[in-house]
Amino acid sequence: MAVPACSRRRLDDVSTTRLETFADGVFAIAATLLILNVDAQVTEGMGELGRRLVEIWPSYIAYAVSFVTIGIIWVNHHTVLRLLSGVDRTFLFINVFFLLCIAFIPFPTRLLATYVRTDDGSAAAVAYGITLTTTALFFNLMWRYAIGAGGRLLRVDADRREVDGITRSYRPGVPLYATATIVGMFQAEVSAALYAAIALFYVVSSVRFGREEAVT
Amino acid sequence: MAVPACSRRRLDDVSTTRLETFADGVFAIAATLLILNVDAQVTEGMGELGRRLVEIWPSYIAYAVSFVTIGIIWVNHHTVLRLLSGVDRTFLFINVFFLLCIAFIPFPTRLLATYVRTDDGSAAAVAYGITLTTTALFFNLMWRYAIGAGGRLLRVDADRREVDGITRSYRPGVPLYATATIVGMFQAEVSAALYAAIALFYVVSSVRFGREEAVT
Amino acid sequence: MAVPACSRRRLDDVSTTRLETFADGVFAIAATLLILNVDAQVTEGMGELGRRLVEIWPSYIAYAVSFVTIGIIWVNHHTVLRLLSGVDRTFLFINVFFLLCIAFIPFPTRLLATYVRTDDGSAAAVAYGITLTTTALFFNLMWRYAIGAGGRLLRVDADRREVDGITRSYRPGVPLYATATIVGMFQAEVSAALYAAIALFYVVSSVRFGREEAVT
Amino acid sequence: MAVPACSRRRLDDVSTTRLETFADGVFAIAATLLILNVDAQVTEGMGELGRRLVEIWPSYIAYAVSFVTIGIIWVNHHTVLRLLSGVDRTFLFINVFFLLCIAFIPFPTRLLATYVRTDDGSAAAVAYGITLTTTALFFNLMWRYAIGAGGRLLRVDADRREVDGITRSYRPGVPLYATATIVGMFQAEVSAALYAAIALFYVVSSVRFGREEAVT
Repeated sequence: MAVPACSRRRLDDVSTTRLETFADGVFAIAATLLILNVDAQVTEGMGELGRRLVEIWPSYIAYAVSFVTIGIIWVNHHTVLRLLSGVDRTFLFINVFFLLCIAFIPFPTRLLATYVRTDDGSAAAVAYGITLTTTALFFNLMWRYAIGAGGRLLRVDADRREVDGITRSYRPGVPLYATATIVGMFQAEVSAALYAAIALFYVVSSVRFGREEAVT
Repeated sequence: MAVPACSRRRLDDVSTTRLETFADGVFAIAATLLILNVDAQVTEGMGELGRRLVEIWPSYIAYAVSFVTIGIIWVNHHTVLRLLSGVDRTFLFINVFFLLCIAFIPFPTRLLATYVRTDDGSAAAVAYGITLTTTALFFNLMWRYAIGAGGRLLRVDADRREVDGITRSYRPGVPLYATATIVGMFQAEVSAALYAAIALFYVVSSVRFGREEAVT
Repeated sequence: MAVPACSRRRLDDVSTTRLETFADGVFAIAATLLILNVDAQVTEGMGELGRRLVEIWPSYIAYAVSFVTIGIIWVNHHTVLRLLSGVDRTFLFINVFFLLCIAFIPFPTRLLATYVRTDDGSAAAVAYGITLTTTALFFNLMWRYAIGAGGRLLRVDADRREVDGITRSYRPGVPLYATATIVGMFQAEVSAALYAAIALFYVVSSVRFGREEAVT
Repeated sequence: MAVPACSRRRLDDVSTTRLETFADGVFAIAATLLILNVDAQVTEGMGELGRRLVEIWPSYIAYAVSFVTIGIIWVNHHTVLRLLSGVDRTFLFINVFFLLCIAFIPFPTRLLATYVRTDDGSAAAVAYGITLTTTALFFNLMWRYAIGAGGRLLRVDADRREVDGITRSYRPGVPLYATATIVGMFQAEVSAALYAAIALFYVVSSVRFGREEAVT
């Protein structure tokens, strides 16, 4: 903040801060809106409440998986921005499209929770998968743009090894979600389990990555 | 932050920051609430889910166009605030009315998505257009007030050419949306396509404007 | 930020910042949720859309009045926090109760918009009035606590005249809303007009107050 | 911000700030969404509005108790973060799970408000209790992780007595909520009263704790 600006661009630190405020707003709202999906599963006149609360367990899983998935993406978004010296208009608009995907997540989450065990399960699993695959695509595009052209937006002091480690860690996202989407065409429940497994994989590997980083 | 305040007004840096927090909150929530409109298009007992998810494509377009439109306005709002040394009460209240328009956007978006291909399409297209035209009017009012009276709220070091460039870039907003609104009275679908085209035009020209700025 | 902390309390600048983030979040969400009330007035199968959009004009007024009222309170909350050197636990909890009132506003707003022209208008007008009166009470409590005990939380450099001016400007809130509430028991529509008039009065007087302050 | 970073970790101050932005977003949204539960209790064609607004008093209590409970947790979360020098990935993910619980609160709140006086009261009271107990568990996990391993994430200058005081003050949360949950299996209304009493206890003891702290 108090550091004199010496970047090649006019849109600088302040932009990063405001992008964070807006992005964190979208992350937080998209994650918090997920509960509306669970809530909508319990309406009056549907029999004993206790049993109903047990029956809708897929809603809880879907809520948790999507919340944690949004949480993972938030942690990664934050890792990316920490490494940038500033942002430009192109980067801001890639972010707008990326956040458009994030804000979309509650919709296929509700579909998956409601339909996974019905004949419509495949459509729901595919809708979920397309959303997450597209989100991962835009996330990668955002990162590629930031580090492209010889580190376009990177801080001068950004650690090359860290940057490469991040590039590597973001690589599996698109193929993983694309695979789960294709599986979803045939087996909705297996696909749903894969989405949960991907989230779990990311939490574990992200925590481990953070540990290594701290050790270095 | 650490820079000693030497402005003509008492409501200073802090105000700009808090205005950003509140404004970014409204931007983020209005954008994220848009998904509720898409979600409401899929209710139980309406036939095969897969087909339904394809049928509601206007909802996706409406979601994307409004999200990106809000994103564009957010980027512009942020460009404006970056150039100000501080804000006063009048500016804050113009912002409140401007944000009132932003928060209104999800409503006509839902109308347009639901009714565009029905006999009620015109009413929906006009409602959308009036909202966006009014938003553009308040945005211009905000900017005019800030630069009025010899640069009332402008930073001392604000680049005159940049300020003029911004003034020029905000000029087409009101006539463009007003035109699309009038078209909407007769042709809802053409009007909807125009709203999408305006958003696209702004993304492209904003990115190009950002490039020129960086080059200068 | 970079200024060394020399206050009497441990919960300092950071607290003020976080209180602002949380408060601005509640302000922004409460204001933005208001649009859901308007949206709920337009459901399928209710006749011609154009006519319906005109018929629900009380919803637009209610939306605008509540949005601007929340905006006014936001501006005032921000004026208060700007004058404080820090916050303590008691102040934080008064704020929690105050924000509880702010977040409640969308509910009576919907009631007033829906019922003002029906036999249930009085109940709606009274519900709206009680909410706003309570909000004004907590706002005053917050301010009284901050300036109490010889300026408990005030900045050392807070201008005494400004503080007194603020105290004076917050005085009419409770009696104004209480009066409109009592009127609501008998005349819902007059009461609704009073709520709009109070908002207008505050915008005008707040802008004027800001001007005088700038001149001084 | 302007202070040179000299911590053991790379993810530093900035992380704390962004965690706050995201967390405060979730806190603010979860708290503000609570009003939707109250609003849903009043639908058209249910008789006289005035009587209905009185009848739904459990909704107001539930709204207030959950809002204040979220407010208490927010104050405590903020006390914790103030004492940390930075955060690591593990801490961020514990926070994601913790916020997942916070965002869940509106759902059992609605259940409790709707069903407390019916045969389904027990199920609702237990659902509320499990949510709050789990939230308290994750909160403690977060704190334990931060102070574990010899003050893993603590500021170097963190006051040992304050840290111990905090550890002590967080201890009763889990047993209190677990007890109220068990009571809920048999007596929904007593359980609901206990949730309110716990919130009240925390407000009072938190304010008192803050006072002692200020005196010290």
